Amino acid sequence: MQIHSPFDLVLFGGLGDLARRKLLPALYMLDLDQRLPDGHIVLISRRQMAADELQEQLRQQVQPHLPPTAYDVSSWQRFTQRVRLQTLDAGDAASYQHLVAQLSGGDNRVFYLATGSDLYTQISQGLYAAGLITPNSKVVLEKPIGHDLSSANAINTAVAEFFDESQIYRIDHYLGKETVQNLMVLRFANSLFEHQWNHKYIDHIQISITESLGVESRAGFYDHVGATRDMFQNHLLQLLCITAMEPPARLEPDAVRDEKVKVLRALRPVSGAAIGDHLVRGQYDAGVSAGRPVPGYREEPGIAAHSYTETFVAAKVHIDNWRWAGVPFYLRTGKRLAERACEIVVHFKEIPHSIFPLQHKSTMANKLVFRLQPDEGIRLMLCEKKVGPGMSVRPMNLSLNPANLKQTRVPEAYERLLFDVLSGNATLFLRNDELTEAWRWIDPVLRSWKELEQRPEPYTAGSWGPAAATLLLAKDGRLWDESS
Amino acid sequence: MQIHSPFDLVLFGGLGDLARRKLLPALYMLDLDQRLPDGHIVLISRRQMAADELQEQLRQQVQPHLPPTAYDVSSWQRFTQRVRLQTLDAGDAASYQHLVAQLSGGDNRVFYLATGSDLYTQISQGLYAAGLITPNSKVVLEKPIGHDLSSANAINTAVAEFFDESQIYRIDHYLGKETVQNLMVLRFANSLFEHQWNHKYIDHIQISITESLGVESRAGFYDHVGATRDMFQNHLLQLLCITAMEPPARLEPDAVRDEKVKVLRALRPVSGAAIGDHLVRGQYDAGVSAGRPVPGYREEPGIAAHSYTETFVAAKVHIDNWRWAGVPFYLRTGKRLAERACEIVVHFKEIPHSIFPLQHKSTMANKLVFRLQPDEGIRLMLCEKKVGPGMSVRPMNLSLNPANLKQTRVPEAYERLLFDVLSGNATLFLRNDELTEAWRWIDPVLRSWKELEQRPEPYTAGSWGPAAATLLLAKDGRLWDESS
Repeated sequence: MQIHSPFDLVLFGGLGDLARRKLLPALYMLDLDQRLPDGHIVLISRRQMAADELQEQLRQQVQPHLPPTAYDVSSWQRFTQRVRLQTLDAGDAASYQHLVAQLSGGDNRVFYLATGSDLYTQISQGLYAAGLITPNSKVVLEKPIGHDLSSANAINTAVAEFFDESQIYRIDHYLGKETVQNLMVLRFANSLFEHQWNHKYIDHIQISITESLGVESRAGFYDHVGATRDMFQNHLLQLLCITAMEPPARLEPDAVRDEKVKVLRALRPVSGAAIGDHLVRGQYDAGVSAGRPVPGYREEPGIAAHSYTETFVAAKVHIDNWRWAGVPFYLRTGKRLAERACEIVVHFKEIPHSIFPLQHKSTMANKLVFRLQPDEGIRLMLCEKKVGPGMSVRPMNLSLNPANLKQTRVPEAYERLLFDVLSGNATLFLRNDELTEAWRWIDPVLRSWKELEQRPEPYTAGSWGPAAATLLLAKDGRLWDESS
Repeated sequence: MQIHSPFDLVLFGGLGDLARRKLLPALYMLDLDQRLPDGHIVLISRRQMAADELQEQLRQQVQPHLPPTAYDVSSWQRFTQRVRLQTLDAGDAASYQHLVAQLSGGDNRVFYLATGSDLYTQISQGLYAAGLITPNSKVVLEKPIGHDLSSANAINTAVAEFFDESQIYRIDHYLGKETVQNLMVLRFANSLFEHQWNHKYIDHIQISITESLGVESRAGFYDHVGATRDMFQNHLLQLLCITAMEPPARLEPDAVRDEKVKVLRALRPVSGAAIGDHLVRGQYDAGVSAGRPVPGYREEPGIAAHSYTETFVAAKVHIDNWRWAGVPFYLRTGKRLAERACEIVVHFKEIPHSIFPLQHKSTMANKLVFRLQPDEGIRLMLCEKKVGPGMSVRPMNLSLNPANLKQTRVPEAYERLLFDVLSGNATLFLRNDELTEAWRWIDPVLRSWKELEQRPEPYTAGSWGPAAATLLLAKDGRLWDESS
């Protein structure tokens, strides 16, 4: 795709956690691969900084997050020379004028809002008032957008006053992961899988994003948000959409997003007293993580001593459409769990009848596993004959792309997504209705928890979550996959 | 399975090609693995031999055919001490009496007839007359049995006078190959494959047994038989049966053989003038094989100068049942072809619609390849995303069991099959009706060729066969798989 050059990228939250760990390393990699057109990268910060101090900050804060062996003196110099810093008070309309001097003069601008979503309206307005929004401008909005349906609607409406929907890129970096793209290729380029991608052949699907870390430095933010808003409403539901959507007619933004939003609209609503049969909230107690004793959530610095914020959520979700009738999707995410992993596991139905001496027919059912982190990869669990006499059958794991992944560096999700923004490809970004529909499903859940005054179930740090989450599947005669 | 001990194995054709290269090495391996019960191995030969001459013969003729590293001095000594030699004139009833002294005395006997099938009746009668056939005896019949339907029927009927059908083991060593067992496991232990194993999802199936050697030392035999009787009627049709059969209800001999014979009965008959649309005969001319110039078939020693015997046969076969309606099976076998290989290739249908920029949709269709020789293995051709920017799709070959095959020695087919005979498991052996039905399909073909005086199409030694064989698929818009 053709990228207009020069372009400018203005990064709000310019020296924040996301910028330092993900966005600036991704921009460096794009530059290294000569995929970043000429132009400036303007970091918006509250604190003034001299040019050499900025360079030192970049060296200390960004360089360690580059992929191994990617650092190169001259590339680093070339890259950092494009980076500028601008102080700006989001609430002060006048201060946006200072931005003009930092831009390279072209009309191709990307405003990346890596701030809390409560600032999105203000910033959009400020940019507009300063005349900075050109027809070629784009704005990237980080998740979570809003904290419920009405706040998300309010932000959508306000930002839409200044940007056209086609200019708005709502990012969910899970969609930028190589394995998620490959999930689409596996589904839609292989008859073997897509023909069985439905209730006739699939028993159930599990999607897990488990973290071993606790709340860390995000306590203040997290305690107001919790796992449902921070992870479930966006990442988990997005992965669900990609896994469950109908084949789009074309690989074009609206064709793909039409299919995704249909999944969200088909989600069976859950609310009221029935919520306990479908969702489990949890909060970690003190325990052991990576061999060290760790405090409980409420003992973490910055967390309210009587916080009822959930650090874990598990759900059994139904998609009420022709394809998925009767197939449960089990989703879960949580902090301070036994392992860091993100996996989508498609459990095919067990064979109807075995002619081989199988001890456990159900554990021999075919599985397709998409692993998104910590490492990326896809594996297929099949049964094969054990070599030698007799007819013993044993499961085997087929790794779908080991050579591929070894030969080639797997790009970080943000590299792909930033390039897609620059080249105007919105396929992997959320449309406003996707955001709205996700909140529409989550809203009654949050409300019911509040109304029922449901406290999160405690679980020991370093475990796989509360017992109620295990029970959620056990009731259906199933088990959570333990990642490997 | 329990094997009665002691047992005796009497091997007609005891120092023949098959015995030296395959049967005696297989018996040695079974002995080495302590799976051969006590008892004698009696080689029937026309020529008298002293004990030390026999030992020398075994050392020279059998030892080189053991698997690498399998030779072991003490094991070899233990094994060869069980081997005896007995001269016997198959046509002389009295000479069978000499056998008695060679047997170990138990009633568990295996008579292995590795001779031409024209001797089976005589030998069975001789064994019977000498009172050697006990209720615990078994007889193993090598292929080809008969040269047409009526001669096969005559042999079946005659042998049945002396042996019960449950005592008769018609061997086809292709069924003993590890990959053929694994084909059954892949099909019947994995929902992913068996659900798509039909006309809705499969485009066509190819089964090839190609040889790079010429007629070699078997000229006298081969020129009377040809590729159709030597390879097609047995090996190719048997592989077709295993590939195409319905799932048997149990892994028991008659349950499996009931399903196989149903495939043969469902083969669409071909005869008369239409034969040219379905079958191609070929005969090799002089050419180049493995870098050396080689003579044409008619110039080989022992071959008639005007022989019309085919050294190549290719067929397009239909199975007229619910599962396979409209799915062609392309079978071929031949000598002096470009490569030695045996593969069953299942071509799934191409995807109905591609959203990716695929250059050649048909070449990207999923394939499952069962390779039986020279090496054994299974691979699955899938499409995956090429790592990196964009959405390029590329084919990849997944090897289903490389670790498995590397860690474990793959037993030779004859090892498995001889053990199955000893333990009374007839699952992988042909029942009389399978043999009859195979001939019933072949007979009109042979007759039509004869009546039409159809001469084999010439092909250059070292090529992939006659142009007409390429055309057989090209007419349907398809290509033969070239093995890899």
